[in-house]
Amino acid sequence: MTHSQLSLNQATIKYAPLADAVRVTADAGYSSIGLWREPVAEFGLAASVTLVEDSGLRVSSMCRGGFFTLTEGQARRAAIDDNRRAIDETAAFGAPTLVLVAGGLPDGSRDLVGARARVADAIADLADYAQESGVTLAIEALHPMYVSDRAVVSTLGQALDIAEQFPAEAVGVVVDTFHVWWDPQVLDQIARAGATGRIASYQVCDWATPIAQDALLSRHYPGDGVIDFGSLTRAVLSTGYTGDIEVEIFNQQIWDAAWPDVARRTAAAFDAVVAPHLAESARR
Amino acid sequence: MTHSQLSLNQATIKYAPLADAVRVTADAGYSSIGLWREPVAEFGLAASVTLVEDSGLRVSSMCRGGFFTLTEGQARRAAIDDNRRAIDETAAFGAPTLVLVAGGLPDGSRDLVGARARVADAIADLADYAQESGVTLAIEALHPMYVSDRAVVSTLGQALDIAEQFPAEAVGVVVDTFHVWWDPQVLDQIARAGATGRIASYQVCDWATPIAQDALLSRHYPGDGVIDFGSLTRAVLSTGYTGDIEVEIFNQQIWDAAWPDVARRTAAAFDAVVAPHLAESARR
Repeated sequence: MTHSQLSLNQATIKYAPLADAVRVTADAGYSSIGLWREPVAEFGLAASVTLVEDSGLRVSSMCRGGFFTLTEGQARRAAIDDNRRAIDETAAFGAPTLVLVAGGLPDGSRDLVGARARVADAIADLADYAQESGVTLAIEALHPMYVSDRAVVSTLGQALDIAEQFPAEAVGVVVDTFHVWWDPQVLDQIARAGATGRIASYQVCDWATPIAQDALLSRHYPGDGVIDFGSLTRAVLSTGYTGDIEVEIFNQQIWDAAWPDVARRTAAAFDAVVAPHLAESARR
Repeated sequence: MTHSQLSLNQATIKYAPLADAVRVTADAGYSSIGLWREPVAEFGLAASVTLVEDSGLRVSSMCRGGFFTLTEGQARRAAIDDNRRAIDETAAFGAPTLVLVAGGLPDGSRDLVGARARVADAIADLADYAQESGVTLAIEALHPMYVSDRAVVSTLGQALDIAEQFPAEAVGVVVDTFHVWWDPQVLDQIARAGATGRIASYQVCDWATPIAQDALLSRHYPGDGVIDFGSLTRAVLSTGYTGDIEVEIFNQQIWDAAWPDVARRTAAAFDAVVAPHLAESARR
């Protein structure tokens, strides 16, 4: 069985070296893979591009840029330069999207408003370069439980307030069910994102409690938690979204499982709780 | 030293029986105490009222009502009846406010939109009774990390959307720094709440990471985390809020400490990072 819109984010099989990740993903019938910069760097950029081309997979997105909440200075400039390299790497794969995780509060800071403003400033430094490179920067709103130490962009609305300062080809947003499902405004903000052509990536995984001891590892297979994938998926698809749909799961138990099993289980979960809503949207 | 607006929520010294909690709070110079229904029931309602009156403390709020996301049926009716009793108990103390925690998704449900609608419906059932009893129902938005298992009301804006369906004397909101500090809209929503007379309670405690293993116990003394109490306190006070300010901390380490020490440490933390902004607001 093939999955025309399904992408496996390689972080779901985090411990697989790039060549294994690509093989496992292709063998499991995916159309696409979401890559991370570190394993690509380990394998070598040019060799990675050839590897993926030979596999027949598309690259749905590169993870990740961002982490630019620092105040002005050498470290901030280094972060922005590193984001330019991330744009280059994304373009090398012909991938449409570089995912941006904003970064948390700088050490010792309580200035959330200032950190948020610096995210917008950094994106202003990068937007032209991304657009010239044919890459869309995709601002990812992370769940508010990560606001202090991971990402000061906390809602889809906030991400759109930033993205809309730039052309849609240059800056969009990620809609990740895990991060946004709780938001009373989520359906309206998905519609807003779609209306302005800003949905650069749709990612699906599930929320369940208790929250994992390492809160970053609290993501689950679609269907193993409480998220209503129907309403969210229909909302995204009804805006005309035709891009890949990525499954990205950080979960120690899943990381410890055999990679082919995880790839199969992920596709089966997608087929069970997400794919039916794709067909439903297509019929309308 | 006395603290004219400071209230100790008794959950901060959770293991203290009511008589100890009242004594410790009064001894530490607080003006007010926030009570929970369970220790009051244990001591007896009439005896509790007398005990608190004799102490000279005000009761800033009763915790808690709510937990009414169930679908229609006997359990839902029982929950709403229990909320009427909670209103009676609040009135017995002459306390202004009953705090409402909405409740999470019912077991097995993924219908967040429906659960949220049922919260508004339950409050509609209770609003007149609260108003006649001289008690304001205070909807508490809880941090989105609690949305699935504790409270489907996740933002101050959402709480206000519900509260504004009723008279301000009947239904208001809690502004709890821990729950709302991350929200990009928080200052606007505090202003909105103040403009319509809806701030029924202001509660302060701090956010720090890592999140505690039991996520409910992740609250900290003001100043021990990353919340900017200046901007939030000035925003609340500038709306004309003159009510008590409660410190409510769920934290195993603090629960395990000696109650008088906790009461003193809490007041000192308040004096250090919250009180300066009260004075500043008063001078304007």
